[in-house]
Amino acid sequence: MQLSTCYLFQGLSECQLKQLIAISTEIRVQQGTWLYHENEPADQMFVLKDGAVELLSTIDDAIELPITIIRSPGSCFGTSALIPPHLYSLSARCAKDATLQAIKQNDLRNLIQQNGELGFAILTNLAKHFLDRLKETRQELKIHFKTLFKSMHH
Amino acid sequence: MQLSTCYLFQGLSECQLKQLIAISTEIRVQQGTWLYHENEPADQMFVLKDGAVELLSTIDDAIELPITIIRSPGSCFGTSALIPPHLYSLSARCAKDATLQAIKQNDLRNLIQQNGELGFAILTNLAKHFLDRLKETRQELKIHFKTLFKSMHH
Repeated sequence: MQLSTCYLFQGLSECQLKQLIAISTEIRVQQGTWLYHENEPADQMFVLKDGAVELLSTIDDAIELPITIIRSPGSCFGTSALIPPHLYSLSARCAKDATLQAIKQNDLRNLIQQNGELGFAILTNLAKHFLDRLKETRQELKIHFKTLFKSMHH
Repeated sequence: MQLSTCYLFQGLSECQLKQLIAISTEIRVQQGTWLYHENEPADQMFVLKDGAVELLSTIDDAIELPITIIRSPGSCFGTSALIPPHLYSLSARCAKDATLQAIKQNDLRNLIQQNGELGFAILTNLAKHFLDRLKETRQELKIHFKTLFKSMHH
C-alpha cells in the first residue's frame, strides 16, 4: 500500500495507517485525463501508486506553466483538500496511465475529528511540505532577480 | 492581548488562548536589531504587538531581498519554530522599535503534546498560511515569466 510511504503520513502508527487505508479508494486514470483544475473545490486528495501526473498552472488562461511531474510512488497531490478554503491551487493532468489512491476530504475530516493527534501529525507534515515548496519557489525568484541584477549592471 | 488576533490562533477556545498566553513573554526590541537569521535554529516564534519588523532573504550572502514588512498588530513570524527541522526560513530585523510576544518552541510543543486538537487547529492555520504565501510567490514568478515571454516575442 502506497499510503505508508507518503510524506503526509510519516510518523503515524500502524493503527492510524489502517484507518486511512479504510477510507481510500483505488482508481485508474488514462494519460491526458484532467484530475482537477486550479481554483475548483478540492473534494479529494490523491496518492500515486504508479504512472505519472503533471501539476501545472496557467498564465492568463493561455500559457501553461509546468510546476512539477509526479512520478514517485507514494507522492501525493491535491492536498489543498486538507485546508480551508478547500480549493485546488494547481491543475493536475495524468501524464502517463496511472493508478491512484483517492481519499475524500469529508472522510478524512471525519477521521481527524475523532483523532486530534492524527490530524496534528498530518497537518505538521503538510505545513512542512508547503514551507519546503515555498523555499524552492523563493529560490527560483532569486535566480530571476540575479539575472535582472546582472543585466542591469553589465 | 495580541495573540487572539493572530491568524495562527483563529478558531481556538478561550481556554486554549489562555494556555498560550501563559507560555508567552513580552519583549521590547530596538530598530535595527536582528531577531534571527535565515537557517538558524528556530527556537521561538513572535507575535507583533506594536512597531514593525522586516523579513528578508539574501542573494549570495550579499544582496538583501526584502520579502515583507510586518506592521499589523497580531501578525506573527518565526513560525518555522513550529515545524521540523525547526530552522528559520528568512531573516528578521526590527524596522521600527517594537513590542513582541515571544513563544518558545519547547513550551509550545509541550502544550500541543497535551492537547492534540489545539495542535491540529494551529497547524491547519499554519499550513493554510504557507499555501497562501506559496500562491503569492508563484504569482510573482508568473509575472517574471510573462516579462520573459514578452521580451522573447517582441
